[in-house]
Amino acid sequence: MSELRKDPIVGRWVIISPERGKRPSDYATQKREERGGFCPLCPGNEALTPPEIFAFRETGTRPDSPGWSIRVVPNKFPALRSEGGGEPHSDGFFEWMRGVGEHEVVIETPDHNVELPDLPLDHIKKILFVFKLRMEELAKDARFRYVVIFKNRGKEAGASLQHSHSQIIALPIVPKRVHEELEGGRHFYGEKGKCVFCEMMAQERNQGIRIVEENEDFIAFAPFAARFPFETWIFPRSHNSHYSVIEQSQYRTLAEILSRTLKRIDEVLETPPYNMVVHTAPLMEGELPYFHWHIEIIPKVTRIAGFEWGTGFYINPTPPELSAAYLREVVLE
Amino acid sequence: MSELRKDPIVGRWVIISPERGKRPSDYATQKREERGGFCPLCPGNEALTPPEIFAFRETGTRPDSPGWSIRVVPNKFPALRSEGGGEPHSDGFFEWMRGVGEHEVVIETPDHNVELPDLPLDHIKKILFVFKLRMEELAKDARFRYVVIFKNRGKEAGASLQHSHSQIIALPIVPKRVHEELEGGRHFYGEKGKCVFCEMMAQERNQGIRIVEENEDFIAFAPFAARFPFETWIFPRSHNSHYSVIEQSQYRTLAEILSRTLKRIDEVLETPPYNMVVHTAPLMEGELPYFHWHIEIIPKVTRIAGFEWGTGFYINPTPPELSAAYLREVVLE
Repeated sequence: MSELRKDPIVGRWVIISPERGKRPSDYATQKREERGGFCPLCPGNEALTPPEIFAFRETGTRPDSPGWSIRVVPNKFPALRSEGGGEPHSDGFFEWMRGVGEHEVVIETPDHNVELPDLPLDHIKKILFVFKLRMEELAKDARFRYVVIFKNRGKEAGASLQHSHSQIIALPIVPKRVHEELEGGRHFYGEKGKCVFCEMMAQERNQGIRIVEENEDFIAFAPFAARFPFETWIFPRSHNSHYSVIEQSQYRTLAEILSRTLKRIDEVLETPPYNMVVHTAPLMEGELPYFHWHIEIIPKVTRIAGFEWGTGFYINPTPPELSAAYLREVVLE
Repeated sequence: MSELRKDPIVGRWVIISPERGKRPSDYATQKREERGGFCPLCPGNEALTPPEIFAFRETGTRPDSPGWSIRVVPNKFPALRSEGGGEPHSDGFFEWMRGVGEHEVVIETPDHNVELPDLPLDHIKKILFVFKLRMEELAKDARFRYVVIFKNRGKEAGASLQHSHSQIIALPIVPKRVHEELEGGRHFYGEKGKCVFCEMMAQERNQGIRIVEENEDFIAFAPFAARFPFETWIFPRSHNSHYSVIEQSQYRTLAEILSRTLKRIDEVLETPPYNMVVHTAPLMEGELPYFHWHIEIIPKVTRIAGFEWGTGFYINPTPPELSAAYLREVVLE
């Protein structure tokens, strides 16, 4: 019997429809792509990207030359440009502004053949630290209201390059989904005086059935009203609204839970395409009692997509309890 | 130079980024699928669907046998079931209800090899009339709050069968996207005393650059803040909040504009996968001054999808002015 479930944060209802197919093997994920061919993100090809913005590199090596372990460059085909102001314009009743922003690529490793979760924990820690550094740097630009950090892995998830990388976009506006989460969080806080994300986490820990991973600082779980099979969220256990205030000691525990969660997903779904997005509070906000930064991971295994775009109404053929059980079963070395 | 544009109805911002690829030929749409193989929707195979709910058929032919021109059957793998009530339940702070609803399939033609826009206008009129009949019938069930009518064409758009068909889902809740449109419309009406959809249409007709088709009752246009390349909306020119109150004379003009618009899309994008969704007011609402029923058509030509799900933040590489120009250029017989 299917169920309708309500996301307590944004109020979105989804259909959890277990009868429509449920085992991981029912999802025809693409085969892991061949990793051959020329790659502009590989060491030796630094001249093919715009000049680097930041890098961790061996002492004595020059910018835009080999010797780096993590490298941040402007996106060669940016969605937004850094020039000009972000003044609002109107055209009759239509509103628009120039596409001002920044679009950066974080090349996570010089090794073309390794995936993020398979990097050493110390290396993943550094990537997570680079996210914070870039976020802080971009926050200094008064034109920007929001910084989105995300990762597309695999063609089906929108990645045009195979070499492991993430992207950072600085925006003069707050994206709609973030705005909805803020509104939902504010509303709940106004009614109950509590953070809805903290409440959700408390109930998830209490019930246990949707938990995928847990350590002293973080929890990974399949949300109650998951839109997609194997959708997994990672929440910090202590309340913070901004990713950038993450404590020094938390880089290791975040690297650990992220690596373990992604390894489980790779194992169960055979290295599927996925999207990962860091949800954090807008730049101009101070610490908020009603918003809680977190990471959402969405494996792209179903194709029922366009209808969902049109109605905001999702049909998920795998209950999150089942997704979590499959993910928990994986034995990690 | 890219632009950020705001959708005046739901307040969603999108990036219109013409530098990232813009011609129809830049979109690798799948080849029109081979239409061979066994089809459960074809005449002669009626026993393979659940018993029909409604059909237009030749006099003297029996239900669930050949002789029909349009046939409505329950979905064999429904997302929702018709049994039981839709009482809300809660599990701690999570809310859910049993998956009560109806999920029907409208088999649009007995001909396996024809696409919706290529059917005779009189036939398309009948399909549009069937939508209304089913909507009215489902509205009688007090458990339902909303009826979604949609069409997925092509595997990439979520269709599992090639034979031309649409789907109808009756729901005990109002989908989030519809709720957002209602809220946006109500807000605009509260401020300006006008229907935001009517205003949008007035400006589109005035500017003309995003218009794709127009007749005495309807207008088809690429919306100012289009999320996707070649996204096209069809609005009735007279204000009505419910699809089901469409006037008798409007079936012909709607069939005409729908057929002409879809033919243009098929021509420019080489028969792409697409989703089409009828947006109408919730069942329990009377005529609303602030909501305007319409149809949204979304060709599925880009893959940058998961990130958009995560943030509600869309990057559209083809400005709607350009999409509309390409679509207008098509010479229809």
